Amino acid sequence: MTEQNPTANMENFSRSVREALAITQRGCEELLLTADWLRKLARAEASGQPLRIKLGLDPTAPDIHLGHTVVLTKLRQLQDLGHTVIFLIGDFTARIGDPSGRNTTRPPLTAEQVKENAETYREQAYKVLDPDKTELRYNSQWSEHLGARGLIELAAHYTVARMMERNDFHARFTAGHSISVHEFIYPLLQGYDSVALKSDLELGGTDQKFNLLMGRHLQQEYGQEPQCILTMPLLEGLDGVDKMSKSKGNYIGITENANTMFAKILSISDDLMWRWYTLLSMRPLHEIDDFKRQVAAGRNPKEIKVLLAREITTRYHSGAAADEAAHDFELRSRGGVPENIPEIQLPCPTEGLGIGLVLKQTGLAPSTKEANRLIAGGGVRLNSETISDRALILAPGSYVLQVGKRRFARVLLKV
Amino acid sequence: MTEQNPTANMENFSRSVREALAITQRGCEELLLTADWLRKLARAEASGQPLRIKLGLDPTAPDIHLGHTVVLTKLRQLQDLGHTVIFLIGDFTARIGDPSGRNTTRPPLTAEQVKENAETYREQAYKVLDPDKTELRYNSQWSEHLGARGLIELAAHYTVARMMERNDFHARFTAGHSISVHEFIYPLLQGYDSVALKSDLELGGTDQKFNLLMGRHLQQEYGQEPQCILTMPLLEGLDGVDKMSKSKGNYIGITENANTMFAKILSISDDLMWRWYTLLSMRPLHEIDDFKRQVAAGRNPKEIKVLLAREITTRYHSGAAADEAAHDFELRSRGGVPENIPEIQLPCPTEGLGIGLVLKQTGLAPSTKEANRLIAGGGVRLNSETISDRALILAPGSYVLQVGKRRFARVLLKV
Repeated sequence: MTEQNPTANMENFSRSVREALAITQRGCEELLLTADWLRKLARAEASGQPLRIKLGLDPTAPDIHLGHTVVLTKLRQLQDLGHTVIFLIGDFTARIGDPSGRNTTRPPLTAEQVKENAETYREQAYKVLDPDKTELRYNSQWSEHLGARGLIELAAHYTVARMMERNDFHARFTAGHSISVHEFIYPLLQGYDSVALKSDLELGGTDQKFNLLMGRHLQQEYGQEPQCILTMPLLEGLDGVDKMSKSKGNYIGITENANTMFAKILSISDDLMWRWYTLLSMRPLHEIDDFKRQVAAGRNPKEIKVLLAREITTRYHSGAAADEAAHDFELRSRGGVPENIPEIQLPCPTEGLGIGLVLKQTGLAPSTKEANRLIAGGGVRLNSETISDRALILAPGSYVLQVGKRRFARVLLKV
Repeated sequence: MTEQNPTANMENFSRSVREALAITQRGCEELLLTADWLRKLARAEASGQPLRIKLGLDPTAPDIHLGHTVVLTKLRQLQDLGHTVIFLIGDFTARIGDPSGRNTTRPPLTAEQVKENAETYREQAYKVLDPDKTELRYNSQWSEHLGARGLIELAAHYTVARMMERNDFHARFTAGHSISVHEFIYPLLQGYDSVALKSDLELGGTDQKFNLLMGRHLQQEYGQEPQCILTMPLLEGLDGVDKMSKSKGNYIGITENANTMFAKILSISDDLMWRWYTLLSMRPLHEIDDFKRQVAAGRNPKEIKVLLAREITTRYHSGAAADEAAHDFELRSRGGVPENIPEIQLPCPTEGLGIGLVLKQTGLAPSTKEANRLIAGGGVRLNSETISDRALILAPGSYVLQVGKRRFARVLLKV
């Protein structure tokens, strides 16, 4: 098997096929082989038969962050072209755990845990994916049935020398760190999933390239048309330096609340923003190019960043939650006080006015009784500080009063 | 696991245990660990519980020669000490064949072929082994049941680095020759057989040492007392130089006829004779030492070689067949004529005597008619040449006449 990437003669393909290729390649690290993928796209267009796009998932870590959604975003873009995503839960090996028993932090999962994790993952992934174009599969369906015999036959399709070419195996072997023989079996099983699923394309992170190529190799060994592989880069985290990860703390979990998500996105650098646009946004590339031109011509990049934050927050929450989060963000960026709040001037004795009366006279409360109730409930803020003393006397001066989340007034108590 | 062989304190063990150790070690290449084996022997003696001694067999080549019987001979010696031999047919992997499909000369065997080969092997092996102390087992009984999951768990108990220490893997890897991943699984399965059988000792050729140690390792991993391993050297063939093998033509098949077997043994050198005595004879070592002393004192070593040939021929055929073969050998070594045959003098006209009359007059045939029948049947030899012409006239002179296999006479036809 040679893994050259010959230049396909693009003129042989329709405009829509070439556009589909561009969408596939957007932000990607590597597509192998481009020519094969073009042929598959053209065949799908001619036959109306969608292509089968595989994403393998380890059901052990269901809580995903934006870094994980780079691949999901790509899958959604391909679904929007009409293709089918196979969301493959690697339950077979997860239920074995670490069979060497040396890694006690990786106990085998029960069938129930796997199912639960897979459901949690699916729930989260369906914020990005189109459920109608997604198949959920479990690889125990075919891996178990291989039996000892089938597994040996599978292992006959790959050499030790090629296995040792995998970066981590090579490094560990060279460093004298132990590799258990069963670790050679896992990539074979992952590759066999592609055979069982007859996949046309498999997605993964750059670090998965070896395993993705295994699927390609095994499909050929089993007499199938080999899948293409598409590797996506790892997303830089909030700091713009390290890859997004929980342990670095530079991540946005997709279940984080809308306000936090929105604000975190607004915190990234302009450079990182363009990167995230490429990898996380569903906006077509030409729109993003427009944005770049506008910024070059003087538009405040923050406005573009707000659009990204709105898009992503809408995806994981809702349009309303994104609006609310945008409002909240603006509010907090001005010390918590919105622009354009009503200004109300009240005559005030030199000894000052009671807070209840002020609330009533400004219309923030219908009565002093209601005002007292609001104060007792912690619903009243004076210059951004919650007050609890309903007997509080305000001396003449200027105040910002807030009732509940959204009702504000600037009050001038004038002697 | 350390594979040191600490000197056991022999004084702690009974005389019979120490003798059993000597029998075990007779002619062996290596016994690991001697101390463990002594403990097992002592325990067996104390409990009356026989030890379990494993010999794994590939059911693909049922036609065995004396070289293969070195190990069988050792097993028989151990059976004579009271222990149980487990004759293990490796049918599981034999029925997979070469799953890479690259070696078309090694197709998978059917269950029937395996059974048939195993039966043939057993029939041959029972010429050496004591059937009452032999269990015949097939490893598919437990290998199949491992399933894909069990096989992965098994493979987790061994590292790639240690696998690469196996001589042939190391050599092939270094030379850039391909090793398929499934080849790493076979030694694990062979080792797992020891776990399934709870074996106390495994025998094999020196070239099998790696696989024998695997059994020891896996038993420890599965919480069992590890087996000892006993490697036996490969037997030198008839030429005394190369190892006995069919392809070298320097072998004695155990199904070869008694006369051929006997004669081939008599053809070996005196040096090789002592080697074969050690490895193939059931005679106790002190008897063999006696023989050596006798030869040193002037006894013809051929007499000792005849005893070996008789022992081995008796084993694979019978005492009577060995007698017959000894006779035949002597006969042929004297041009086919036994010593001490009757000498008969007959008066003879100068023109000679007809063969039929000679046969009748010497008493080798009851009548000339019967003499003619014998000649027609090819049953009469004259000076070792079969004759067919019943009208043959013998001129005066001396002749050796033979009728059938055993009746001889030296005839002097005197004018």
